Amino acid sequence: MAKEKKFVEAITSMNEDFAQWYTDVVRKADLMTYSSVKGCMIIRPYGYAIWELIQKELDRRFKETGHENVYMPMFIPESLLQKEKDHVQGFAPEVAWVTHGGENELAERLCVRPTSETLFCDHYKDIVQSYRDLPKLYNQWCSVVRWEKTTRPFLRSSEFLWQEGHTVHATYEEAQEETIRMLNVYSSFCEEFLAIPVVKGQKTDKEKFAGAQATFTIESLMHDGKALQSGTSHNFGDGFARAFGIQFLDRDNQLKYAYQTSWGVSTRLIGAIIMVHGDDSGLVLPPNVAPVQLIIVPVQQHVEGVLDKAYELKERLSKVCRVKVDDSDKMPGWKFSEHEMRGVPLRLEVGPKDIEKNQVVLVKRENREKLFVSMDELEEKVPQILSDIQKSLYEKALAHREERTFTATTLDEMEKILNETPGFIKAMWCGDRACEDLVKDRMAATARCIPFEQEKISDKCVCCGKEAKHMLYWGRAY
Amino acid sequence: MAKEKKFVEAITSMNEDFAQWYTDVVRKADLMTYSSVKGCMIIRPYGYAIWELIQKELDRRFKETGHENVYMPMFIPESLLQKEKDHVQGFAPEVAWVTHGGENELAERLCVRPTSETLFCDHYKDIVQSYRDLPKLYNQWCSVVRWEKTTRPFLRSSEFLWQEGHTVHATYEEAQEETIRMLNVYSSFCEEFLAIPVVKGQKTDKEKFAGAQATFTIESLMHDGKALQSGTSHNFGDGFARAFGIQFLDRDNQLKYAYQTSWGVSTRLIGAIIMVHGDDSGLVLPPNVAPVQLIIVPVQQHVEGVLDKAYELKERLSKVCRVKVDDSDKMPGWKFSEHEMRGVPLRLEVGPKDIEKNQVVLVKRENREKLFVSMDELEEKVPQILSDIQKSLYEKALAHREERTFTATTLDEMEKILNETPGFIKAMWCGDRACEDLVKDRMAATARCIPFEQEKISDKCVCCGKEAKHMLYWGRAY
Repeated sequence: MAKEKKFVEAITSMNEDFAQWYTDVVRKADLMTYSSVKGCMIIRPYGYAIWELIQKELDRRFKETGHENVYMPMFIPESLLQKEKDHVQGFAPEVAWVTHGGENELAERLCVRPTSETLFCDHYKDIVQSYRDLPKLYNQWCSVVRWEKTTRPFLRSSEFLWQEGHTVHATYEEAQEETIRMLNVYSSFCEEFLAIPVVKGQKTDKEKFAGAQATFTIESLMHDGKALQSGTSHNFGDGFARAFGIQFLDRDNQLKYAYQTSWGVSTRLIGAIIMVHGDDSGLVLPPNVAPVQLIIVPVQQHVEGVLDKAYELKERLSKVCRVKVDDSDKMPGWKFSEHEMRGVPLRLEVGPKDIEKNQVVLVKRENREKLFVSMDELEEKVPQILSDIQKSLYEKALAHREERTFTATTLDEMEKILNETPGFIKAMWCGDRACEDLVKDRMAATARCIPFEQEKISDKCVCCGKEAKHMLYWGRAY
Repeated sequence: MAKEKKFVEAITSMNEDFAQWYTDVVRKADLMTYSSVKGCMIIRPYGYAIWELIQKELDRRFKETGHENVYMPMFIPESLLQKEKDHVQGFAPEVAWVTHGGENELAERLCVRPTSETLFCDHYKDIVQSYRDLPKLYNQWCSVVRWEKTTRPFLRSSEFLWQEGHTVHATYEEAQEETIRMLNVYSSFCEEFLAIPVVKGQKTDKEKFAGAQATFTIESLMHDGKALQSGTSHNFGDGFARAFGIQFLDRDNQLKYAYQTSWGVSTRLIGAIIMVHGDDSGLVLPPNVAPVQLIIVPVQQHVEGVLDKAYELKERLSKVCRVKVDDSDKMPGWKFSEHEMRGVPLRLEVGPKDIEKNQVVLVKRENREKLFVSMDELEEKVPQILSDIQKSLYEKALAHREERTFTATTLDEMEKILNETPGFIKAMWCGDRACEDLVKDRMAATARCIPFEQEKISDKCVCCGKEAKHMLYWGRAY
């Protein structure tokens, strides 16, 4: 049968060809497929279910911190995009332009939003009048378009799903506080929910968002040692407010420009989950973000009583986790591989002998560890095991990152690490853009961030040898 | 203060100018505002919160009936849109065309999806091979674009939010069963959740969806007697499958074309809520779809203990309903008007005298009925009162529809009703398109549907006098 056949074809091993391994996993775990529009993907039910879990949890955390959801139009008139000059320079080269509505040419071109700062600003200038109107803490869930030349599923596609928070404040300090608050929401979400450890820090001027005064980032390390920018939070100062005329009457009766932030994470996080936790058997999902946390596979399901027992256990366990029974007519071995490929954290096997002994076999996806558990204790044990797995995945990812975090004091050292054992490299920097450019030209690595937790690796810039200002995380990135 | 000032300006009365009343309500209740893109609206936090409640409940009902969510690209290549000829004729005149990506002209124009049948079909032809792959029951939540010439908030805008279900089945009968199943999901959702009674029926050929074999609809009646098509469900037969080559190997080893359906509802439902339940004081929200179900207004809030009691009640009541305290420094009278304008179903007033008596005053938005309730009984009484309000709003809407549903046996009668007491008109029809065209030309009314519940008003077509085939609901519509 076609559907089973594909599981016979083993996926490429990670060490052999990581890029091909990634492509194999996203396709064979049915997370996405390609569409007839270049660079745009179809997110399939299993991939979308992961995104729904991410959305639900993030949305809860946004609302808990006082944010409200809104919806802005997907189009931006060309003249509006041009209002903030750094911003338009950053985005204009990669937007899709709508020129016709029905049969008629439009009087002004519209771009499909690559991000919505300009739309939010245009709205804020109308609704913010007084200090009483502040802060405004808005977020929106939507899709955005950036016309990318080379694309990779979830990591870089011409259209992707994300959320973008946009806030307005009375003072610079409040805007900065919000910028860091949301960075922290992202980092705790990644660590607690996705089991992905992150480094928090500030982007260099070269790498910051077009139009931002300061960009903060969470950076994570993939299994192959490449970095992934996993979320960003920007402080705009009053730059956009001045460009768009967002002013308010303050308590002191003075008309002042407002201060703004924006912050976003996207379906790229699904790419991070795959590349941080996956292995040669496919996807490995942290239980918190697994659409199916426990799969029940009946063994000798034709034997009377086995399927009934499987359904009974499902009924019971559905109260404590997301559970399914695989009662298809495939062989158990096929089912094991299929659900391993799909990263289901825990498998429950139940057959005639288990029923006799009033026990089941639980198998952890992460390491195939087998546990024999009495049927009477399942409601108690399963949530505990899922919680252990969640913790263990985080610890493994953290250990991998620590093992792959190096220090360097010379460019030769940096290059050697990048070529032999790629990972994060902590090295000093003088603060000059020229040094960043040189590193990028020579070894295709970028400054990932100026981490909040600074260390002194040496006194001198790794590149020019002048006095160092900051310690940076460097790396090759997706 | 600017923010309070707007509540002084009374909204237009419904009877004086219903269209202006509608515009006043959507703006003053802060549901939406206009954007700088013609025909596209900004959905503000309060309006979006209503949409979130609609989404959450519908999504639950879709999943309960076995559907999965996916995400398709927002762009459709021109050649793909053209594959089904009725479909392209219906939509091509009103789509937005993307012609450039960044600096480059695209090799092929892309339209921004007006609906996604073509994208789903293109995907289904790849993933449906065998009867084992069927049915496929997919849904997507997204925004779509239809380049409308005249627009009205929520009712008709160039971009709107919706869900679109797309399913594939092995037989015509299964597709028909799904089409009606989803129509029933929509009708029970409208009646139970939005408190809006609907008429279920089939669209005439003139009014059916471009590319459908049969379109089914739920039609509701607004306060002004105009009809609103509130949701549709289409049976495509195998028309799209033949155009796109969606074939599967059946149990009998024959290669067969698949049968498909699609169904959708949109942010238009927010317009329906406003126009069915609203009154001259503004919005009236059924409790199920109210972002705030109970607003606590402290009276003499400067008196010691009043605000504390308000917060305490909020804390207690948040376990049984969505509740907020309005502790702003406005006068209670202002607050009453503001929350009435916003349609909050129930108001709780608590002041020093109430505290003394250990009671509160509850005021129903729908009829300003006052209830004096002991503080000790609030957790029990409030959910009960909210449930009563939900029921009462449905009954009022149903009574209004019944009062405004007429029968006619001649065109003169129909026209008189439409001009004097607009509403639904039940009248017979011979089945000829020419008669529908004539009614539309003469009195700007359309056949809303051939209702499932047929009655025999007379033997003859209301228009041509020939033998009647069906009883229709006619009306002027949004």
